[in-house]
Amino acid sequence: MVIIMTKHVYNFYAGPATLPLPALKKAQEELLDFQGTGMSLMEISHRSKEYAKMHAEASGLVKELMDLPDDYKIMWLQGGASSQFYMVPLNLQQKEKSMEYVNTGVWSKKAIKEGRFYGDVKVVASSEDENFSYIPNDIEFSDNAAFAHITGNNTIYGTEYHEWPKVSSNVPLTCDMSSHIMDKVIDPKKFGVIYAGAQKNIGPAGVTLVIVREDLFGRVPENTPTLQKWKTHAEKDSLFNTGPCWAIYMCKLSLEYLKSLGGVPAIEKINRKKAKILYDVIDNSSGFYRGHAKPASRSLMNVTFNLPTSELEAKCITEGLSRGMVGLKGHRSVGGMRASIYNAMPIEGVQALADFLKEFQEKNQ
Amino acid sequence: MVIIMTKHVYNFYAGPATLPLPALKKAQEELLDFQGTGMSLMEISHRSKEYAKMHAEASGLVKELMDLPDDYKIMWLQGGASSQFYMVPLNLQQKEKSMEYVNTGVWSKKAIKEGRFYGDVKVVASSEDENFSYIPNDIEFSDNAAFAHITGNNTIYGTEYHEWPKVSSNVPLTCDMSSHIMDKVIDPKKFGVIYAGAQKNIGPAGVTLVIVREDLFGRVPENTPTLQKWKTHAEKDSLFNTGPCWAIYMCKLSLEYLKSLGGVPAIEKINRKKAKILYDVIDNSSGFYRGHAKPASRSLMNVTFNLPTSELEAKCITEGLSRGMVGLKGHRSVGGMRASIYNAMPIEGVQALADFLKEFQEKNQ
Repeated sequence: MVIIMTKHVYNFYAGPATLPLPALKKAQEELLDFQGTGMSLMEISHRSKEYAKMHAEASGLVKELMDLPDDYKIMWLQGGASSQFYMVPLNLQQKEKSMEYVNTGVWSKKAIKEGRFYGDVKVVASSEDENFSYIPNDIEFSDNAAFAHITGNNTIYGTEYHEWPKVSSNVPLTCDMSSHIMDKVIDPKKFGVIYAGAQKNIGPAGVTLVIVREDLFGRVPENTPTLQKWKTHAEKDSLFNTGPCWAIYMCKLSLEYLKSLGGVPAIEKINRKKAKILYDVIDNSSGFYRGHAKPASRSLMNVTFNLPTSELEAKCITEGLSRGMVGLKGHRSVGGMRASIYNAMPIEGVQALADFLKEFQEKNQ
Repeated sequence: MVIIMTKHVYNFYAGPATLPLPALKKAQEELLDFQGTGMSLMEISHRSKEYAKMHAEASGLVKELMDLPDDYKIMWLQGGASSQFYMVPLNLQQKEKSMEYVNTGVWSKKAIKEGRFYGDVKVVASSEDENFSYIPNDIEFSDNAAFAHITGNNTIYGTEYHEWPKVSSNVPLTCDMSSHIMDKVIDPKKFGVIYAGAQKNIGPAGVTLVIVREDLFGRVPENTPTLQKWKTHAEKDSLFNTGPCWAIYMCKLSLEYLKSLGGVPAIEKINRKKAKILYDVIDNSSGFYRGHAKPASRSLMNVTFNLPTSELEAKCITEGLSRGMVGLKGHRSVGGMRASIYNAMPIEGVQALADFLKEFQEKNQ
């Protein structure tokens, strides 16, 4: 059977999002016969040695690429990052301590809402006053908070933390990195908990990477249903029950590709170049393109901007689509346009978009 | 690129399990380009019209194949059937009413354990006295139970309900059908809730099909975290947050194939033939093969049996493997051998196993 590969679009969707082409090709190649087993990866037992090897390799790649110390446990969970919105307070709560959050947009708010089911929540900083166009720089968490929660990158608004807020050593900094995990080098030791839905920067939908410093497993109340406890999953290397095998496999293939590029330090350089190409178009457009995010808070992953009128925005999205550039419509909370340029977006795609935007301005201003 | 398809084994794994070859081929064909989008299904937004169409088709197939009335809502959830072990009592609990279960094995016990986190649990019948080799026939649920829970097919022991226990009209019968959903025609109106991890009979791991009669959504306590409530998911057709897109897609392809065969009535006939082939080998072996399940409770899906000695069992498993028959080792709770012959197992695979078992007996008895 001959398969014709027609990868002819640049996909700027915010998530699920573009995946590395070599990862997709590998998945296609071995879809019917995983490593000589005569079966698809989707058909083999999660207790088989073939699956176990793949699963361990996926976790090993996360550990290696993020340079995680040994006391950080990696879990591959289901339910999306949204399920961590309740698993975080459930697993980290402490009697008579407040749970503290920074509100940088819709996803922070959703996290805050779930926190309130478990106890006293304090929102210590917010950028809601200017439609979440910046990351607050006056963040002060209490010294005795149960945990401090931030949303590392805000997909909708195109803002990203470029330095981490300070926390007292006994307060675990907890970060939703769904839309920028591994976009740049970080020091994992600054965090107690990192979680990320895979479908933006490291894989397909259906799996959430959760990384927890192991001293934090002891906090969860005894009378908690088994699968709601992180430690249930961590103790069994995410094999307490059948996991999202295919999604983990796709993460593995995607992370292998990231490693082949030189890992996170290498992709950070590329990401900074990619983002600069687009922000330069905005900044050199004499106001034709207006960035939503304030320059100091600009995201490397999601570039959000408006045009002079909503008619021009609609026209630009349609013309982009006709040139094979998909997913450029902004989120309804901000309007306008959004280009999501995750790790798997090649620099050629970003350059094609930049060229198109310059041309569009010339013709339409 | 030429892809050589080497589907040369018969896969008797209990789950994740064999999938229909036409479904796998279709997935392989369009892995890089889903229906002319130029993107993989894994890369397209769950809010795109292409994804929405596929998602609706998957749900439509479930409705059609199971002949579900309009007041039954279909959900594609994450977390495995094991997550339903807590979601069932959480969502169906009622003040001062007991939650009632039948204990037919390890998976029933796990469900019962999670029920106890939410209130008073009553186990009304059990087959633990004979290592779960039968389905109790003296099941009596209370007239005022909050719900009545059964495990429809017991993968480990090879037992299956062939008639459903009676419940009072106000008591929702709740069934874990993970290992036999759509193996035979059922009357869905007998049930309040049906749930099934996909990875045995309808798709890959990573998604759980949950079907709930809509009058039951009102029971969940107000102060419940958003994603733990069935109604959150049902109201948004399982698109409240990003779902396990690929796993749903594979279910769709697998159910399309089931429909092409003639749906559940047709597969039921095939399943009965397949099971009879293996049970006849056991029954005609003069005791060389001993079935674990009592004849009246025998499963159509999992055929469990022992040989005269554990050495012979090990030999039989190894020889089977050398002939391309994978996954025949029994679960440690029962020992011996297990052939899982789900909907996607072709009758040729079952016949090959039967022939091998007869030959093995001749040579080794």
